Amino acid sequence: MDETTAVREPVDLRSDTVTMPSDRMREAAANAPVGDDVYGEDPSVNDLEATAAEVLGTEAALYLPSGTMANQTAARVHTERGQEAIVETESHVVRYENAGFAQHSGVQIRPVDAGDRAVPSAAQVADAVIADDLHRPGTGLLCLENTHNAKGGLVATPDAIAAAAEAAHDRDVPVHLDGARLANAAVAADVPLSAFAAHVDSVSLCLSKGLGAPVGTVLAGSEAFVATARGVRKLLGGGMRQAGLIAAPARLALTENVARLADDHANANRLAAGIDGLDGLRAPARETNVVLVDTSESAIDAETFVERCADAGVLGSAFGPETVRFCTHLDVDTAAIETALERIETVVRSRR
Amino acid sequence: MDETTAVREPVDLRSDTVTMPSDRMREAAANAPVGDDVYGEDPSVNDLEATAAEVLGTEAALYLPSGTMANQTAARVHTERGQEAIVETESHVVRYENAGFAQHSGVQIRPVDAGDRAVPSAAQVADAVIADDLHRPGTGLLCLENTHNAKGGLVATPDAIAAAAEAAHDRDVPVHLDGARLANAAVAADVPLSAFAAHVDSVSLCLSKGLGAPVGTVLAGSEAFVATARGVRKLLGGGMRQAGLIAAPARLALTENVARLADDHANANRLAAGIDGLDGLRAPARETNVVLVDTSESAIDAETFVERCADAGVLGSAFGPETVRFCTHLDVDTAAIETALERIETVVRSRR
Amino acid sequence: MDETTAVREPVDLRSDTVTMPSDRMREAAANAPVGDDVYGEDPSVNDLEATAAEVLGTEAALYLPSGTMANQTAARVHTERGQEAIVETESHVVRYENAGFAQHSGVQIRPVDAGDRAVPSAAQVADAVIADDLHRPGTGLLCLENTHNAKGGLVATPDAIAAAAEAAHDRDVPVHLDGARLANAAVAADVPLSAFAAHVDSVSLCLSKGLGAPVGTVLAGSEAFVATARGVRKLLGGGMRQAGLIAAPARLALTENVARLADDHANANRLAAGIDGLDGLRAPARETNVVLVDTSESAIDAETFVERCADAGVLGSAFGPETVRFCTHLDVDTAAIETALERIETVVRSRR
Amino acid sequence: MDETTAVREPVDLRSDTVTMPSDRMREAAANAPVGDDVYGEDPSVNDLEATAAEVLGTEAALYLPSGTMANQTAARVHTERGQEAIVETESHVVRYENAGFAQHSGVQIRPVDAGDRAVPSAAQVADAVIADDLHRPGTGLLCLENTHNAKGGLVATPDAIAAAAEAAHDRDVPVHLDGARLANAAVAADVPLSAFAAHVDSVSLCLSKGLGAPVGTVLAGSEAFVATARGVRKLLGGGMRQAGLIAAPARLALTENVARLADDHANANRLAAGIDGLDGLRAPARETNVVLVDTSESAIDAETFVERCADAGVLGSAFGPETVRFCTHLDVDTAAIETALERIETVVRSRR
Ligand SMILES: [Ca+2]
Ligand SMILES: [Ca+2]
Ligand SMILES: [Ca+2]
Ligand SMILES: [Ca+2]
Ligand SMILES: [Ca+2]
Ligand SMILES: [Ca+2]
Repeated sequence: MDETTAVREPVDLRSDTVTMPSDRMREAAANAPVGDDVYGEDPSVNDLEATAAEVLGTEAALYLPSGTMANQTAARVHTERGQEAIVETESHVVRYENAGFAQHSGVQIRPVDAGDRAVPSAAQVADAVIADDLHRPGTGLLCLENTHNAKGGLVATPDAIAAAAEAAHDRDVPVHLDGARLANAAVAADVPLSAFAAHVDSVSLCLSKGLGAPVGTVLAGSEAFVATARGVRKLLGGGMRQAGLIAAPARLALTENVARLADDHANANRLAAGIDGLDGLRAPARETNVVLVDTSESAIDAETFVERCADAGVLGSAFGPETVRFCTHLDVDTAAIETALERIETVVRSRR
Repeated sequence: MDETTAVREPVDLRSDTVTMPSDRMREAAANAPVGDDVYGEDPSVNDLEATAAEVLGTEAALYLPSGTMANQTAARVHTERGQEAIVETESHVVRYENAGFAQHSGVQIRPVDAGDRAVPSAAQVADAVIADDLHRPGTGLLCLENTHNAKGGLVATPDAIAAAAEAAHDRDVPVHLDGARLANAAVAADVPLSAFAAHVDSVSLCLSKGLGAPVGTVLAGSEAFVATARGVRKLLGGGMRQAGLIAAPARLALTENVARLADDHANANRLAAGIDGLDGLRAPARETNVVLVDTSESAIDAETFVERCADAGVLGSAFGPETVRFCTHLDVDTAAIETALERIETVVRSRR
Repeated sequence: MDETTAVREPVDLRSDTVTMPSDRMREAAANAPVGDDVYGEDPSVNDLEATAAEVLGTEAALYLPSGTMANQTAARVHTERGQEAIVETESHVVRYENAGFAQHSGVQIRPVDAGDRAVPSAAQVADAVIADDLHRPGTGLLCLENTHNAKGGLVATPDAIAAAAEAAHDRDVPVHLDGARLANAAVAADVPLSAFAAHVDSVSLCLSKGLGAPVGTVLAGSEAFVATARGVRKLLGGGMRQAGLIAAPARLALTENVARLADDHANANRLAAGIDGLDGLRAPARETNVVLVDTSESAIDAETFVERCADAGVLGSAFGPETVRFCTHLDVDTAAIETALERIETVVRSRR
Repeated sequence: MDETTAVREPVDLRSDTVTMPSDRMREAAANAPVGDDVYGEDPSVNDLEATAAEVLGTEAALYLPSGTMANQTAARVHTERGQEAIVETESHVVRYENAGFAQHSGVQIRPVDAGDRAVPSAAQVADAVIADDLHRPGTGLLCLENTHNAKGGLVATPDAIAAAAEAAHDRDVPVHLDGARLANAAVAADVPLSAFAAHVDSVSLCLSKGLGAPVGTVLAGSEAFVATARGVRKLLGGGMRQAGLIAAPARLALTENVARLADDHANANRLAAGIDGLDGLRAPARETNVVLVDTSESAIDAETFVERCADAGVLGSAFGPETVRFCTHLDVDTAAIETALERIETVVRSRR
């Protein structure tokens, strides 16, 4: 194997889901006290759930295998069949969850375009809420997402969450916050996670993305909410047995890896600035760990650009016809970002 | 009872669903040959279905108790669970059918705002179609509505239907046309009903609105489509027995009452022009039988205006915070429209 | 046309659903005061619903296009997703409604075999009720059927209904009575219809079977039940407009045709006795209008026997591998029964 | 803490789900090569799935968080809405999965009582299959369970599986085998796991029960089946990221812990024999690791007996009004069984 090939160890910026568990996490897995969590007897799961509730400032929390299950469980608990759920047009529950609101809950979405904001405004929410009548049983849920993935890791401040949620609550509509990357929002806004959770009826937090846990998402809310959610988790097949083996490292993700997300954000800005300086590419500064690259000024579509970057040793993903996404995360340090930039520059240069 | 009260026999413009069966229809009901339609043995139902297929230019048709059942049946036949259905933002299936696409078919809606058109453009449809991947099984239906009720009886021309449908078909997406008021569109566009149906995979036509039938909607398409739809009708509880009693008058609605919709359209324009001439009200000319009145220039909301009109002897419906809808139909002749206008004028004058 | 052909005008005993509306019913249709029932303004529908509530002794009633919709609506109103519904193994909701409890309500059936009784005993019901726990949300419905179609029009007495219902109620489980042929049960047991309805939370009554209405079923219960059921009817697409045209004759079915079911029962017994006297056929006496013929002693299966009878001018239906069903009804008088018997005898004789 | 308390360290025979991961499993977790399994890049998951496919003799396999998700996924892949699934009356999918067939698949169950056998006979299956017609879309699945949990770990031989499956296949009905404890069946019948899997279209195998894995179930079948199942797993929220941390120990469960189930079976028989020798208790010999105790000859119900055993230091579960279940497993050796027996004897003696 020659030098060149060695250089080509790719910098993987496809998603922060690719983060690997640390040695400390592996050690935690190896030594985790465990039990049967379906009986509520896994100490490591219980510990993680208690920690999550504390961090999020809720009464209780539940550990689930995925963020999709967390969001779908929340929707099922909050809604009745036939109701509408107000969602942001490009949110994860709309794009990536197999029409789950329809399939699992019999709920119709009402997409609201928040434009360059992460969450709809209070006025948009107020406008979108419908009353129940013979033709439809009204609005049953407002579902927010923070940070907003499809909009490039956009942050909603606690005030923005509060405003949207208040508009919903004033109309007796419960609010779920899809916090797949809520820790990124907290770090960017320099507030604790509970500053967001305080305004909503349920909140999820993905531990296997930027926080680096191998598996899992927590779903938090009131005791009553979590008790019902536990039943829905069973229905969906999310009841795991000696889950402590993954809950213990997941807890480390929550207690040790939040603050360091600031590094990912700095790296994302470094990457964006570098790319933005290249001919034909635009990459505006971002608040968190998602870099969106607009290729429209060069005559190259996103799919092709992603392929050429991959050939050059940088993995990203096509996010639209002329939009490419790069995600920074804990397995990519500043040196790797510099390497990525050099490689992307090669791609751009070779196209002239 | 004094003269005044007699005058107050209200002019009912709430909807064209209030149309009453004619004497000829009642006679047809009384004399209808009937049989058990669940066994396919009702001659009057078979006759209606054959006539509908002929009028719409399709292989077959099915008689159902309501337009909602027709639309929901079509969606169920065309789609698979988890798919998306492209719909106009304010269409009937979105607003008035109890989230039926989600509940009956497990399908997620993708609303597209057609603005001042009745149906989305080809470009909008092309844009809204999604491919299937692990996260979602793609787009399963384009559902159009003509005339568009919530937009004030707006007409889509056969060309507009063809363009949207072609954009869908090019991407292997079937098209259903909610033709609750398709006869109004045909009359307004001066084309046969089949001119619309030719471009879609299924089409419904409501017989109990402007056409005056007491009950029912036909759903038309290919033989295979209708055979499957028949099973879905059974599932939804729409199998009726000696339904010829309503199918016979419904057939008259289809064979005798289409051309006369031109009168309703003329009356709607007469009404709109009259209202538009009143202080503080705007009522732009319409192509069909739905008049939308904008009350925003007067300091009166829609609910209040509807109430005052009702007190004055004209029934309409609030259609938005400052929008009132009046529908013309076969039980309201030109004289009644003049009466309605006089009464509405009283309402406006008394407010000064 | 020669004599023979004339003779072959078939005696149609396939089902009592084939009953034709009488001249009085047709006249009622022709003269029915009607209105838009979706607005609650059809006087004939309101009249039918009030009459049905009175006859059944309930607070309210609702008119629907079919018995299937009535049963499915009741299940949806009474249950929550994931619950179980106790049903008789061979009941209509199990066999003929497209798995509707699963599809419309997300409910799992728990079939109980009532043997030679129409409804399960109190002990069977008590045994079948399950409590809710993490693994399942308990029993949500007991669904009874009277008369029991698949068991040959078997009657459950009011006491039998009361016993089963009490066992359910003691465990907080609501009870729906599928009374497709409840009028036959009432006549056979010589009690008013309300004697059954008094024990259950909802009851349906089919008007288009032995009672001779062209279309429809009523679903009755408390005001609150019917209000919710009205919304489910809309969801299922059962909202009809000027439905008075069929509600008016349906009301006659209810007010005029109950007592005369005794004739159908007498005819059924006449037919059963006649058939039982034939070689190789057994047809035990029945309480109502359904005759079950056991062909097992002759070397002929049900399908073949039905075909030969049809050729001879008697229509029945195969109800099992060696079971044929004949239904008597208001369009088959005693003379026609004698004709049917003669023809069936021909079939038997020709086989020797 | 005195001696007595130390003795009271309970012998946990509630279920084999309580098994703890071994040190070797913990080590495997700590050292597992991992990747993002949603991208198909987790080597340990891929390794487990390949191993499972090999052991079961299928083309492919899929790793899921629970046995419930495996069964529900299989049902969803095999069936169409409205079909029936033939199930054994007391099977896991009927009792413990929240009416999942109805909720996730819109499928109605047809329970068949296999009596003292684990699976229905070919004749029972043939009898239970229904054809599709207007009233119902036929039978879509035969779901077998081996060993049968509710019947006390009863084994179906490969021949019994083959006979039932052939009866289904002859009628074009696919077969899923819920193999939560299929390894126990294989050991008891002294055949490889593939001897069962060869006859069915899909098979699940729980790794976290007797096999001792911390988490998870594999679902195996053809390449096409598994590809579709992967999409359903996503829909249900079962997509996990660096799942290798639990897949690696789960693989050890599969490769190292099958043969040793013989010890659990021997222990179960030892326990059963001992209990059967006690006054008022009957515990017939069992083929696998589940002991059912009949308390009906003593005047004690199951709940009370379980409580007293717990006080004495033996954990079991009430399985019926007078039936108690004890499960042996890898964390309970022969000495612990002797201890359990002594303690149960105390309970019996103290009741005199
Ligand atoms: Ca990760
Ligand atoms: Ca009408
Ligand atoms: Ca009839
Ligand atoms: Ca005989
Ligand atoms: Ca275990
Ligand atoms: Ca004994």
